[in-house]
Amino acid sequence: MSIARLDGATRLYGIVGHPIAQVRSPEVMTAWLQQAGHNAILVPLHVLPEAFDETMLGLMRLGNLDGLVVTVPYKARALALADTCLPTALQVGAVNALRRNADGSWHGAIFDGTGLVRALRAEDFEPAGRRVKMLGAGGAGSAVAIALAEAGARALDIYDTDAARAADLAQRVSTHYPDCEARAANDPAHVDGHDLLINCTPIGMQAGDGMPAPFGPLDPGLRVVDIIMKPQNTPLAEHARACGCRVMNGIPMLDRQVEAVMSFFMEASA
Amino acid sequence: MSIARLDGATRLYGIVGHPIAQVRSPEVMTAWLQQAGHNAILVPLHVLPEAFDETMLGLMRLGNLDGLVVTVPYKARALALADTCLPTALQVGAVNALRRNADGSWHGAIFDGTGLVRALRAEDFEPAGRRVKMLGAGGAGSAVAIALAEAGARALDIYDTDAARAADLAQRVSTHYPDCEARAANDPAHVDGHDLLINCTPIGMQAGDGMPAPFGPLDPGLRVVDIIMKPQNTPLAEHARACGCRVMNGIPMLDRQVEAVMSFFMEASA
Repeated sequence: MSIARLDGATRLYGIVGHPIAQVRSPEVMTAWLQQAGHNAILVPLHVLPEAFDETMLGLMRLGNLDGLVVTVPYKARALALADTCLPTALQVGAVNALRRNADGSWHGAIFDGTGLVRALRAEDFEPAGRRVKMLGAGGAGSAVAIALAEAGARALDIYDTDAARAADLAQRVSTHYPDCEARAANDPAHVDGHDLLINCTPIGMQAGDGMPAPFGPLDPGLRVVDIIMKPQNTPLAEHARACGCRVMNGIPMLDRQVEAVMSFFMEASA
Repeated sequence: MSIARLDGATRLYGIVGHPIAQVRSPEVMTAWLQQAGHNAILVPLHVLPEAFDETMLGLMRLGNLDGLVVTVPYKARALALADTCLPTALQVGAVNALRRNADGSWHGAIFDGTGLVRALRAEDFEPAGRRVKMLGAGGAGSAVAIALAEAGARALDIYDTDAARAADLAQRVSTHYPDCEARAANDPAHVDGHDLLINCTPIGMQAGDGMPAPFGPLDPGLRVVDIIMKPQNTPLAEHARACGCRVMNGIPMLDRQVEAVMSFFMEASA
């Protein structure tokens, strides 16, 4: 648990999700706010699916609530609550942060993929100009694909067990980032000519899970990201490390995402 | 500021009011919750008058919000939000606390007057059987009158500059507590035969205010309460003390009210 100061003048931020008890933002982001000298905290807000609309509208009318982090399962649903949003949020079709502007309107953004791009750069991997193989075209995969395309990735090969979902995401990327060659991929394990492999599927989270695809030996020059946070070491990560690849899990991505969200919240004060 | 632990599993309580920055409950009640070993905090919730209904309904649908303290100007308005309430809340026509029951329904109560009764008893003054002179028949006066009648006061003489308001409160008390002689009073300064004088008007809060009525010398046996908290010493309190009376301001009343509200919140867990 983190430690927070609290009084009648404390400004509120919240994280909305279902369930909520497992989220780390109240600790991490409250610590950030307090260390930055703000009289503000970020509290868990358990929004129930059957009451989503009225609960969110009520929260967003509070006079001392300045921002909301949105997590599972509400990122897509919350997009409709924003009066305005960053282009990437529209492209992904989801928000993970909503902030109140000075005029009372709400501005949305998604930083899930931004966190990955920032984490890669912090580990000396510049996504611009790179060829990327991605597994998983769901919510996380969409955010990652859009962020990589925005960062200048040269090609995205996207595999999903649902081929139509992969094709749809590739199409969205191509529409918004015509300089990025985005394609649906047929073979999940094919990584020849790629600079970066990213697992955005949940395969590896459960005990007994294998790799998300039957990878053979990997080129040691291939950078590998498994965005799973628990466990910190997945079968894919172990295999890649054994092949000599540099590997990153989801934790640096989340850390950088926290920075991006807090910067977004703070811009509203300016 | 008080210090609070905070994580994803933290349960929430709130205080709703307008304005909100001046309220002390987040500090006092969060300290109480934490000292009692609960992973819970009480946060300020600034509810705007033009958004009262939708904001309150949204807050009350949150899955991890277990109780609300209601303060100015919403105590009467919040009564309608309770599914059930204690009889005194209906008699006063207001709530200052709402708690979620195990079945999801919301239960209301008012403890403004309860705090006064408890504070008097803690200072060796038992209200049962006493004759009371009250000034002010507004929200605070109503809560105090009902609580004193419930505690067994023998007579309540109620003065208000709005005579109809005093008569209405006296009638409400008489209806619910027929053993208490409740009457509207014509002369605010007349305290012969009374055991207790209570100021429930705001006169004494502003610099330059005099007493709420032109009191002459007071019997030293008369107990005097001025429910004003700021300043802690009013012209009435100074006059009464100079006459040798025991005097109490609003602070012990608030302290005891906090205890009563927290007990009410905790009963829901049982």
